[in-house]
Amino acid sequence: MTRAGAGPEKITVLGAGSWGTTFAKVLADAAAEAGARRTVCLWGRSPESMATLAREHRNERYVPGVDLPEGLEYSSNLAAALDGATLVVAAIPAQSLRAQLAVAAPHLAPGAVVLSLAKGLESTTGLRMTEVVAQVLGETTEESEQEWARRTCVLSGPNLAMEIAREEPTASVVAAPEHGTAAWVARCCAAPYFRPYTNTDVVGTEIGGIVKNVIALCVGICDGRGYGDNSKASVMTRGLAETTRLALALGGELTTLSGLSGMGDLVATCSSSLSRNRTAGRLLGSGLTPGQVQDAMTQTAEGITSAPAVLDLARRHGVDMPITDAVVSVLQGDAPVHELAPRLLGRDLKSEGNTA
Amino acid sequence: MTRAGAGPEKITVLGAGSWGTTFAKVLADAAAEAGARRTVCLWGRSPESMATLAREHRNERYVPGVDLPEGLEYSSNLAAALDGATLVVAAIPAQSLRAQLAVAAPHLAPGAVVLSLAKGLESTTGLRMTEVVAQVLGETTEESEQEWARRTCVLSGPNLAMEIAREEPTASVVAAPEHGTAAWVARCCAAPYFRPYTNTDVVGTEIGGIVKNVIALCVGICDGRGYGDNSKASVMTRGLAETTRLALALGGELTTLSGLSGMGDLVATCSSSLSRNRTAGRLLGSGLTPGQVQDAMTQTAEGITSAPAVLDLARRHGVDMPITDAVVSVLQGDAPVHELAPRLLGRDLKSEGNTA
Repeated sequence: MTRAGAGPEKITVLGAGSWGTTFAKVLADAAAEAGARRTVCLWGRSPESMATLAREHRNERYVPGVDLPEGLEYSSNLAAALDGATLVVAAIPAQSLRAQLAVAAPHLAPGAVVLSLAKGLESTTGLRMTEVVAQVLGETTEESEQEWARRTCVLSGPNLAMEIAREEPTASVVAAPEHGTAAWVARCCAAPYFRPYTNTDVVGTEIGGIVKNVIALCVGICDGRGYGDNSKASVMTRGLAETTRLALALGGELTTLSGLSGMGDLVATCSSSLSRNRTAGRLLGSGLTPGQVQDAMTQTAEGITSAPAVLDLARRHGVDMPITDAVVSVLQGDAPVHELAPRLLGRDLKSEGNTA
Repeated sequence: MTRAGAGPEKITVLGAGSWGTTFAKVLADAAAEAGARRTVCLWGRSPESMATLAREHRNERYVPGVDLPEGLEYSSNLAAALDGATLVVAAIPAQSLRAQLAVAAPHLAPGAVVLSLAKGLESTTGLRMTEVVAQVLGETTEESEQEWARRTCVLSGPNLAMEIAREEPTASVVAAPEHGTAAWVARCCAAPYFRPYTNTDVVGTEIGGIVKNVIALCVGICDGRGYGDNSKASVMTRGLAETTRLALALGGELTTLSGLSGMGDLVATCSSSLSRNRTAGRLLGSGLTPGQVQDAMTQTAEGITSAPAVLDLARRHGVDMPITDAVVSVLQGDAPVHELAPRLLGRDLKSEGNTA
């Protein structure tokens, strides 16, 4: 098995947006740090864009001002990009992953490991990204869904892409069903400024990354309404509590949600002025309609698409998620944004444990 | 027993700094909201200052620009202030509490409940504030230390005083050994903008409030060194993990540390530009010595005093606290501040659970 060896000879990143481009840089820097002979290839759909990246060693649209490593390769040819890649990184928006992966499937190397970077639930099915990967590849390749699930991993953590692109110290989590797979992937992306931890709780790791976008929308709304750090810290705390309840109901582990991919990712996203979801929330809080917010954003705020799917998943598992519920009401126009705080900061005096 | 009735006829707050003054306002607003006939008295040491507060209904030094409620009374006479007060709130800095409480003890009403607002460990003894209260009053009144411990409570949460003074929506936690006592105190301070939850985990509630000041110093140091939100979120996450380990070792409960007085208080303090501890850390990170930082601060940064006591407590209970350890090394001049990040973001690739 390849994974027992020194590492893959070729890694391909699908998707040349801000996170895909940044993670390709991490992989190339990690290979250089380890002294590994390894090709890292960044694939994007547009031939013109990829030719520009290859010429300038920069992606000015998505990671402005950042020099990309010399060794990084660029391609808009899917078959060539995937040829021989034993680790394939899916840096594709949650709602496009199914369609793009179906196109990529025939070109995947036998035995390849797939690492998902996207954070969201597929809105049409309510499936997590690793579930979508295994389902699509199980249908379109010779291997079964179970075999793909065993080799599908997720990376998640307090990982604002621009900070990593600027090489600010960052930690993250690689989760895979088998520890050996997680450790193999972690070694591929351990750069001087990027420290990946490992675990085997794929569900908990994914749920943390999905729901934090919804909580960040709520924190953004609080911002837009002019609330202070006390209120926002309460929303984050009770938001992580409801995220944890959902993860546990799905088989995730408490320590994952208390860790870097749970609390860490939530706090980084909700603290950052760079977060798209928090920005979208702030616009909602300042009085824009959900439609106006979508128009004003240049990149997807994934929480807007995932929130109803998260609420639906919670209801199917009998989990109470009052913050997600309130955010969905605002997004669907069922509740005016100024009613959010009274809903979340009710007046009954309760024991904390009973309501957490 | 008084606590079964409608509430105390008189509450006295000892200490007219920013938190004491703000909490006196909360208590007076809560009494007005409940339509209770209740005296709320704010005591401060300086006759001149208290006369100014009584005349201006403002405390410009500590809560500038905030109008204090009409009904609030002011005193610098300890005996008169405590006469008939069945709830006494100690808003006194951690390192002065023992001496000031010993002076107050002879004037305490029989059966009074004491609520501690201070966050710190007494540096000379390593005791928590509720332990100091029970010890001092057990020695200097006719009641025993055990009886006082039963009636000593703590309030803690994401409670930046200036935001509460401006009536921004805020939640908090009242912890007492008996639920009835916590609920009685909570009813006294439930104002339209202030929502107190209750629990019976005094240890966990206090430890969360104590250690967050140390973690805020570390986040401030990261700020001062120019690190971004990824690094700071990791420090908060792993900081809460070590706080939780200490609390559990002392008999506290996990849910308390995951709640408003644990994660909530930590996140609010570490997010706020108003936090004294984060400010002190930022000055350390930008290259000032601990002595220079002390000189530059107009109010106490409690984390600086408590950090060595926290580390000592952790060692006595066999608890590993790498962030606290690193902060103490910086404070004692044993480690230069630029070595903090490499110490906290080590290079070994580990399973997250093993190192959390």
